[in-house]
Amino acid sequence: MGPIPPGFESEEGMLLIGGRGAAALADEAGETPLFVYDAGMIRRRVADLREVMPGGVGLHYAMKANPFPPLLALMAGLVDGFDVASAGELARALEAGVTGDRISFAGPGKRDREIEAALLAGATLNLESVGEAERALAIADRLAIPPRLAVRVNPDFELKGSGMRMGGGAKPFGVDADRAAAVARHLIAAGAEWRGWHIFAGSQALDSEAIIEMQAATVALAARLSDAVGETPPLVNLGGGFGVPYFPGDAPIALEAIGDALGEALDRRPASLGSSDFALELGRYLVAEAGVYLTRVVDVKTSQGERFAVVDGGLHHQLAASGNFGTVVRRNYPLALANRFGMPATDQPVTVVGCLCTPLDRLGDAVALPSIVPGDLVAVFLAGAYGASASPAAFLGHAPATEILVGED
Amino acid sequence: MGPIPPGFESEEGMLLIGGRGAAALADEAGETPLFVYDAGMIRRRVADLREVMPGGVGLHYAMKANPFPPLLALMAGLVDGFDVASAGELARALEAGVTGDRISFAGPGKRDREIEAALLAGATLNLESVGEAERALAIADRLAIPPRLAVRVNPDFELKGSGMRMGGGAKPFGVDADRAAAVARHLIAAGAEWRGWHIFAGSQALDSEAIIEMQAATVALAARLSDAVGETPPLVNLGGGFGVPYFPGDAPIALEAIGDALGEALDRRPASLGSSDFALELGRYLVAEAGVYLTRVVDVKTSQGERFAVVDGGLHHQLAASGNFGTVVRRNYPLALANRFGMPATDQPVTVVGCLCTPLDRLGDAVALPSIVPGDLVAVFLAGAYGASASPAAFLGHAPATEILVGED
Repeated sequence: MGPIPPGFESEEGMLLIGGRGAAALADEAGETPLFVYDAGMIRRRVADLREVMPGGVGLHYAMKANPFPPLLALMAGLVDGFDVASAGELARALEAGVTGDRISFAGPGKRDREIEAALLAGATLNLESVGEAERALAIADRLAIPPRLAVRVNPDFELKGSGMRMGGGAKPFGVDADRAAAVARHLIAAGAEWRGWHIFAGSQALDSEAIIEMQAATVALAARLSDAVGETPPLVNLGGGFGVPYFPGDAPIALEAIGDALGEALDRRPASLGSSDFALELGRYLVAEAGVYLTRVVDVKTSQGERFAVVDGGLHHQLAASGNFGTVVRRNYPLALANRFGMPATDQPVTVVGCLCTPLDRLGDAVALPSIVPGDLVAVFLAGAYGASASPAAFLGHAPATEILVGED
Repeated sequence: MGPIPPGFESEEGMLLIGGRGAAALADEAGETPLFVYDAGMIRRRVADLREVMPGGVGLHYAMKANPFPPLLALMAGLVDGFDVASAGELARALEAGVTGDRISFAGPGKRDREIEAALLAGATLNLESVGEAERALAIADRLAIPPRLAVRVNPDFELKGSGMRMGGGAKPFGVDADRAAAVARHLIAAGAEWRGWHIFAGSQALDSEAIIEMQAATVALAARLSDAVGETPPLVNLGGGFGVPYFPGDAPIALEAIGDALGEALDRRPASLGSSDFALELGRYLVAEAGVYLTRVVDVKTSQGERFAVVDGGLHHQLAASGNFGTVVRRNYPLALANRFGMPATDQPVTVVGCLCTPLDRLGDAVALPSIVPGDLVAVFLAGAYGASASPAAFLGHAPATEILVGED
């Protein structure tokens, strides 16, 4: 298993999340499984970023990572902007109290009515293609709204070692770098409020040097494009890519080194970016480690000498932890017995499977856990991002998982 | 791409589903994307099975494949039994008009209240472990209901070439074959109504010989276990495993040969199964080919020489077609341009991507399609099973897809 994220304590063998015992949280929810998000950990993560990132670099939350409304409301008070990927997310961000001028909307398949909703809210559209630019201008014209438009750029480099590459080749995202300046000039000529560049090269990278290189390349690309436009972009969204450790051998990124390097890159930036603001767009990095999925053991059985613990949750709530979402080889997310947290493991490994009637529903293959019996609570860590909202909740007709935000005053 | 399932016609270049034009269906739904299921194709599939399967072999529908209520109501009139995998599915089956005595409930993580719901409905529980057997007996005793209990067996053989193996090793499903008879004897001694055996060795096999061997082995195992119990099982659920072609080189199974071989295996079955009924438990095979996912092209763009069509659907509705559910290597599901169906492809392939802002959201890599423009309708075939209900519908905040059953009188 990979490392349990730092910051989780226990009391008399019970895992604490935001200072609350796991069993008490399950009782309060009335049902298992449940997702518990620790507001304190999210606050600390944002504070750590503020501490090391240079001035003039804002933080945006990519809400696709976790759109749980109370978490959005918390985040609305912590970050500078929200990045949304659909009209549905836009509506939720507005409901959470984020004003339209703090919202940007990226996504390769924006429908006309989604563009309309964004324009009406005063949000910035990160345009993904020439065709989308034309549609946005036409809709703005019809609505008589001066549109706030940025150009999403498909960069001509990649984020090395990232879990998902979004640059460095033919991509459905953004306008190829060699055509981006022309699109921006066209927007300006058409009377739009040009908001700048959105350059997102990849996600979930753990190689700090690669992130540093990617950020430097992003600043350089933004400068080159801005020179070609002949105007200074109000905002350069530098993308994200900050990964979190999931698996054995993974280590946290070196946040301070990344912040220092970004500061240097910005200090020596060309005049074409002199008065620009910058932003990091982070989703997973802000919330993944703050979430725990708690699920109760229903049965413990042995088949042909292998020990299985069957829990009442599974891939319908936590698809990524089952290894069925964007991964080629299944590996175990860190997990623990919440009600015997920190106790020594038995020498017989146990395979933790979900309750679904499919061999895909595995949460832990042959993991070392303390003695386990029905009624125990299993904690699956790193459940704060791409969990509840990124899983096939209707599959096999089980109830959705409860979600709780703890540690709010 | 793999083969488009047989039976789809067109009229003036428009794909017909159940005799209705795809564009008209999209208009009627008011929204794209939508899933359209053809009742006629489902009826024909069931009729084909009835035609070739030996007498005394019932058909069960594994409703996890597609729990759309109108489809369940159709299926309730076509098949002999429903297999459910949760209390939620049980409730939907009952709402569709299936009586409890026609329902069996399998699943490795049944909670106490799910067992209770099944007992109250008069459904058969396919017991997955000794522990579950004890819980079921205790709950039945408390409710003063004579429980209907079958033993799910983890067979000591596998279904070769199956997409998902559910036998032939240590498994979370069922009681190991060498302990199953003891469990059945215990149920009988405890006064339960013993309903027989549930033996499910695998799914999605396209090797007809392997299916024939697996069925013969299943009959032999059921006979051996029944001899050990000393009673004739009322029902032997032979499982499923019948696959459908998805990918290049896939061919349909030889249904008649399978039916003939099963007939021979049953004709020479031992006396211990003399008066037993048998059942096939099929999900995907009954419904997959009858479903089409229709999604509209929002944008067409070129990146670094590669052509992309961006549609308004994606993996949030059709996860399996994106290659992110139970597959190691992504391959294209068959797809077509519904409004230029059967027309010649251009010589420039197009990559069809969904609208989600993630590189995982791909529906077709470099496929040969006729000339494609925004507004066109893309049909993704084989969408009748493990589509709408097996996808992360909430991911990125888009609306769920509409579902329509056509071809009902």
